[in-house]
Amino acid sequence: MLKLYDLEGVDDRRFSPTCWRVKMALAHKGLAFETVPTPFTRIASVGGGVSKTVPILEHEGRFVADSTAIADYLEATFPDRPSLFGGAGGRALVEFVDAWVLATLHQQLVSLVVKDIHDHVLPEDRDYFETSRTQRFGRPLADIQAGREERVETLRGSLLPLRVTLKRQPYLGGERPLYPDYMVLGAFQWARTISPFKILADDDPVRAYVDRLLDLHDGFARQGNAYLL
Amino acid sequence: MLKLYDLEGVDDRRFSPTCWRVKMALAHKGLAFETVPTPFTRIASVGGGVSKTVPILEHEGRFVADSTAIADYLEATFPDRPSLFGGAGGRALVEFVDAWVLATLHQQLVSLVVKDIHDHVLPEDRDYFETSRTQRFGRPLADIQAGREERVETLRGSLLPLRVTLKRQPYLGGERPLYPDYMVLGAFQWARTISPFKILADDDPVRAYVDRLLDLHDGFARQGNAYLL
Repeated sequence: MLKLYDLEGVDDRRFSPTCWRVKMALAHKGLAFETVPTPFTRIASVGGGVSKTVPILEHEGRFVADSTAIADYLEATFPDRPSLFGGAGGRALVEFVDAWVLATLHQQLVSLVVKDIHDHVLPEDRDYFETSRTQRFGRPLADIQAGREERVETLRGSLLPLRVTLKRQPYLGGERPLYPDYMVLGAFQWARTISPFKILADDDPVRAYVDRLLDLHDGFARQGNAYLL
Repeated sequence: MLKLYDLEGVDDRRFSPTCWRVKMALAHKGLAFETVPTPFTRIASVGGGVSKTVPILEHEGRFVADSTAIADYLEATFPDRPSLFGGAGGRALVEFVDAWVLATLHQQLVSLVVKDIHDHVLPEDRDYFETSRTQRFGRPLADIQAGREERVETLRGSLLPLRVTLKRQPYLGGERPLYPDYMVLGAFQWARTISPFKILADDDPVRAYVDRLLDLHDGFARQGNAYLL
């Protein structure tokens, strides 16, 4: 059985964007797996300390960490299942989509919901989260999040390349989703799992796209505790 | 013989970014071709009026317009030559890279060099160019271009996803270039062909990347009249 160590919040909220990438990749390949709910402060003990971050995949006694490395592992180990990349060119461009998702989506989202994340991590994780993020940003969490009603417009504006692409095809992967789509979905899953704050306008084509991704694999990404989109 | 209708400026400067995409695609496939220098105001007569814009490829009596359509045509017509996309996933993601290049690079570059373009188009094209661009932007060309010394920093900042990718691999296409790399190169070729304005800082990894692209196929993209990078 495949086992995924998955970040856990209060009420069993699973909010890690990179864990969602991997869960969608597993669903894409039609692989059965179980998740191991894992608080921040227990990640370092998984597999005797194989990684400081989740996702960590356990398969036949092997541990694989890092979402892209796990996607590569799944593609290599289960080549007869639907491809995550659609060939070498698609795999190479995963790096650019990842860089765009990190620089555009993750960086802006964290500044919009970081206090909400804090309020939804497990009690045992709160000190760790507050200390590490306050240090990283050099300000209290509430200050980082302040003014988000205006700042969300910058995020919405920066989604233009995605919006243009979606005029031409339903997924980044073309007519069907590929791993890059799950990288984008992970970011929105992250936000909606721990925050009621509205990231996307109702009439944004990106919202309809995220809805399509949530519907995939029998509504796989709708399962579990989350706020509405 | 393959024939490419290619935008022409003064001193035979070939400044169309999308024509450069196609020329690099032809070089990538190792195909012999000739270019037909074409002023803006003569595009509408090519092939009896097949397209309002270049690039237009002529092959065995057939005319194909639009850079992506031409890349698809080349990939389908010459499948035994090196692939431009590296498979279906790579082809699908061309749309996202294209949207990013247009929204980030082209949109900002035109506001930095539009007056320089005007000064380098053929005399017969100047009125057309000035009228159409002034109308599009609602301001005189010199006003659009004003303040570029500061605004170039915004462009440099928006290259972050490219910079992150280049830390991981030498090209968007991975170890070797693919069509998406030529989409990026086209933008920089556009700028340097008609403007001495310095777009990239000397120590920017994107600059080293553009240099690598200029070296490809025996320095193919260095040929012809242009300013230094």
